[in-house]
Amino acid sequence: MPNSKPDSQIPRKPFLRALGGERLGHPPIWLMRQAGRYLPEYRAIRGKVSGFLELCYTPELAVEVTLQPIRRYGFDAAILFSDILVVPHALGQAVRFEEGEGPRLDPVRDVAGLKRLGMEGMHDRLAPVYETVRRLVRELPDTVALIGFAGAPWTIATYMVEGGSSRDFALARGWGFRDSQGFGRLIDLVTEATAAYLIRQADAGAEVLQLFDSWAGVLSEDEFRRWAIAPAARIVKAVKARHPDVPIIGFPRGAGIMYEAYVAETGVDAVSLDSTVPLEWAARALQSRVTIQGNLDPLVLLTGGSVLENGARRILDVLGKGPLIFNLGHGIVKETPPEHVARLIEIVRGRS
Amino acid sequence: MPNSKPDSQIPRKPFLRALGGERLGHPPIWLMRQAGRYLPEYRAIRGKVSGFLELCYTPELAVEVTLQPIRRYGFDAAILFSDILVVPHALGQAVRFEEGEGPRLDPVRDVAGLKRLGMEGMHDRLAPVYETVRRLVRELPDTVALIGFAGAPWTIATYMVEGGSSRDFALARGWGFRDSQGFGRLIDLVTEATAAYLIRQADAGAEVLQLFDSWAGVLSEDEFRRWAIAPAARIVKAVKARHPDVPIIGFPRGAGIMYEAYVAETGVDAVSLDSTVPLEWAARALQSRVTIQGNLDPLVLLTGGSVLENGARRILDVLGKGPLIFNLGHGIVKETPPEHVARLIEIVRGRS
Repeated sequence: MPNSKPDSQIPRKPFLRALGGERLGHPPIWLMRQAGRYLPEYRAIRGKVSGFLELCYTPELAVEVTLQPIRRYGFDAAILFSDILVVPHALGQAVRFEEGEGPRLDPVRDVAGLKRLGMEGMHDRLAPVYETVRRLVRELPDTVALIGFAGAPWTIATYMVEGGSSRDFALARGWGFRDSQGFGRLIDLVTEATAAYLIRQADAGAEVLQLFDSWAGVLSEDEFRRWAIAPAARIVKAVKARHPDVPIIGFPRGAGIMYEAYVAETGVDAVSLDSTVPLEWAARALQSRVTIQGNLDPLVLLTGGSVLENGARRILDVLGKGPLIFNLGHGIVKETPPEHVARLIEIVRGRS
Repeated sequence: MPNSKPDSQIPRKPFLRALGGERLGHPPIWLMRQAGRYLPEYRAIRGKVSGFLELCYTPELAVEVTLQPIRRYGFDAAILFSDILVVPHALGQAVRFEEGEGPRLDPVRDVAGLKRLGMEGMHDRLAPVYETVRRLVRELPDTVALIGFAGAPWTIATYMVEGGSSRDFALARGWGFRDSQGFGRLIDLVTEATAAYLIRQADAGAEVLQLFDSWAGVLSEDEFRRWAIAPAARIVKAVKARHPDVPIIGFPRGAGIMYEAYVAETGVDAVSLDSTVPLEWAARALQSRVTIQGNLDPLVLLTGGSVLENGARRILDVLGKGPLIFNLGHGIVKETPPEHVARLIEIVRGRS
């Protein structure tokens, strides 16, 4: 076939090259929650549907809000618009989003409560998400990578047990201490469901997967190994068995010193860092093993001006010497002026 | 003077020996919030006063609740019963404690708001606290050390700016980013007031001082250096100039990797660790420099049984090889059965 190019001549997307361990002239950039309330065009779409889950489950709308920040800013990656709580919802738990109040779930607090949950019918409920992924594959520009995602089992379990957000996670952690076998069954169920969910996203065309462990930072070392590292390692293994070439980014937010063990023991290809992680430490302890993603403080982006310049440049200076994906350390704040995002992209791409 | 013993023959309190860097047969133990709502005798006293600050400002009652856990358990140290928010209160800010709601302050959010605050009259307002310390010196058993304390400037500033507790500290952090000079003036005021407050506690007889930076864990590296390390270093220097022999324990809760810089750069004699800090790392990175205090998870103490046994023994095994003060990683939870505390003391003192 004289017209086919060998793989090495096809220019790969910058985002995938960075995930493969390459250090690029300027790092690829995307922002957690880049499709969100800081964008007027997002708020316009959001106003058209009554419930937040309805937005996640309507492919036409989910595709549109996924593409909005790509059109406006030309990010190097798009992340599927969805919510981590579609997994408990698909497992049979009641999930509601109330305006200004955060999510509400009918809590599961013991092994008896687990009986109400299961994976039968899960993929039917999640079918609109897979359809969104398929449509995005067709609609995204050639240079933009598509990220699928899920919440990590510990974080999902906190919502399932607490019934929503929490300050201290005492119910979820308490169950884990008091009855680690029972709580382990919940974690196992979510682990299995999450692996299956991510595999289906990759089947549908997601090129990269990110696992968000937003509440990993409250765990002690033993809990972290049991409820954060072990489930992530199982998920990575299961996904890689089906999709060996799909890179996986882990984000155990707030893991502190335990980022090191997470990187060493889960098999992730990249680690996303929250904004508290000191850069020189990350370069030394983590970047020799995996690609780093992060970690500008969302409040620095909100502030803008010289604070934004200095914050972004320091990350580029320290972490830009190795494989890096520029991102925030947490989701973009809804009050962020859209022009600050444009300025950040200029800084990262060296157009100052 | 033939009857005077040389210093070396006076048996020092175990708590002070551990702070001096000695490794003892079993470590001294006290628990953060050991005088608190988990004790029925505390609840009885608390029921006698209408406001929480009234309890802090009534020496007779504050002495009584300070002594309650010493009588019941024989801890190696008593901590002055008070609240970190007496400092903003003494600086002129309105502070209220509403039942079940946490503290409420009239927030200070700009430099203009600072004009309402000042150190004039501060020590008069705090006089009942100093009186409590003086009475405790007389009433405590000879073997029990007396700890005075204050909130660290960053943590105090969060309450002063947010007007109470916060989930994201966006107002305090945002001010620090937007106008670091103005926010720095607030930090400077609290730093100066805190040093003066701690010096007076030591004047009154406090043998050890602890600085609680409960919300240090939300800070990025640059903020941590500026708002946590630098003020702590200034406070340590000022206190040591007047009381060179009073050890200071720093507790930058949630500092993660930054515990190392905190220990290296503040001049504290000991560092209190939250429960997320991995023990082997703490032994290696911190305990060679300072005494470690911590770090049993309060939920492990709440759980009791074999979970408590294993958790406590692991700390003793790993950190007991160096200078250690056994404590929790955070305040005791109010639902904790008092008999779990008794059991913990047995384990730590090797009476199993």
